Formats: sequence, C-alpha cells, structure tokens
Amino acid sequence: MSILFCQVSMARTNPTSIRHMVVFKLKHPAGSAEEQKFLNAIMKLDEIPGVENFELMKQISKKNKFDFGLTMEFANQHAYDQYNNHPDHVAFVQNLWGKEVADFLEIDFELPGK
Amino acid sequence: MSILFCQVSMARTNPTSIRHMVVFKLKHPAGSAEEQKFLNAIMKLDEIPGVENFELMKQISKKNKFDFGLTMEFANQHAYDQYNNHPDHVAFVQNLWGKEVADFLEIDFELPGK
Repeated sequence: MSILFCQVSMARTNPTSIRHMVVFKLKHPAGSAEEQKFLNAIMKLDEIPGVENFELMKQISKKNKFDFGLTMEFANQHAYDQYNNHPDHVAFVQNLWGKEVADFLEIDFELPGK
Repeated sequence: MSILFCQVSMARTNPTSIRHMVVFKLKHPAGSAEEQKFLNAIMKLDEIPGVENFELMKQISKKNKFDFGLTMEFANQHAYDQYNNHPDHVAFVQNLWGKEVADFLEIDFELPGK
C-alpha cells in the first residue's frame, strides 16, 4: 500500500501535460460555407471537459499540404483519454471528421508538468 | 506618401504574428551523446533576435515518425525572414541540421496580431 501511495503521490505532484495537435486539409473549397460550418463544429470541441488552451489556426507554410491546425492541451494522459472517449468527440469524429477531412497528421508533445 | 504611411500604420497596429514549427527525427540513437549535443545546439537558436516563445519538446504520438518538435513565434513576416537569414541560423542549417536530421516537417501557423 505504501508503494502504491508513493507512486500516486508522485504522479500528482509532477504530472506530464500533453499538447495535442492536428494539422489537416478539408475536402471543401477554401472560403466555402461548408468549410466555415466545419470550423464552427471544431470550435465546439473546446467545450469538452479537460481541454485547455484550445487554438484553431490557419496553416500558411508552402512546405506541407495542410490548411489548418488545431492545438489543445491536457493536464495528463487521463484527461486526454477522457477527451478521446467523450461522446461529443466520438460523434464529431464519426459524423464530421471522417467524412469532411481530406488528409491530416496528428502530433503530440510532452510538456513540463504544471 | 499618405497612402504609404497608412499601410505602414495598419501593419503596425494589426501585425500577423507567426508560429513556426518543425517536427523532426535525428539520425542519432535515442539517448545518445550525439543526440544531446544536437539538442543543445538547437536551444541556442532561441538567442537569435526576433525569436519568441521558443519551445523544444518530445514528440510522443505513435501516429507519426517524428521524435522532437520545435516551436517559436515571430511578431511578423519580417522578423521571421530576419531569423531565416541570420548567420547563426544559416550556419546551424548547413553544419548540423542538414547532416544530422533524418526527416522533418515544417508547419507555420498564422496567429492573431499581438
């Protein structure tokens, strides 16, 4: 019991937070109403519990094929897992992401504990 | 003259800042002295004028092939160009980046003006 307590205590005092990032390209034409509708739907992911420092940005480098980027941070892996499994996120991926995104790349960074 | 002044004035009051990002994989084995030496050299890029919010992070997603990520921000395209052309950056790319990096992807985000 004492060893288990020690491990939990360490995890609480020095958690590893995570910056989750996705760069993506939509099937919709740039500037279209469909594009704006999709971006509005993405913005609602910010409301899922555990999401911090949400940012949706234009990707402007000519050195890759993506048009947008999304970043968000989680206090720890548990919060990240809860987001992934949240019904709103699952529904978004099934109903919108899977149908309207032409290509994407996921990137996750380990951040110092907060 | 008055039109030129107006344009300069607008650029100053509403600049578009840029978050420059590179994800990369080194030729060196993970945890090696060569890896650490390269990461130490990267950290010095933070000293180049115009670089803001410099971050060097471990990339931990299994969904891409990269091991590290570097982000930095510039107040505007001019500051970004100055960084790219700075002798320390040019020397770093020629002497280290080109020789020790196995693969990389550059991503640039447009941020709201500061």
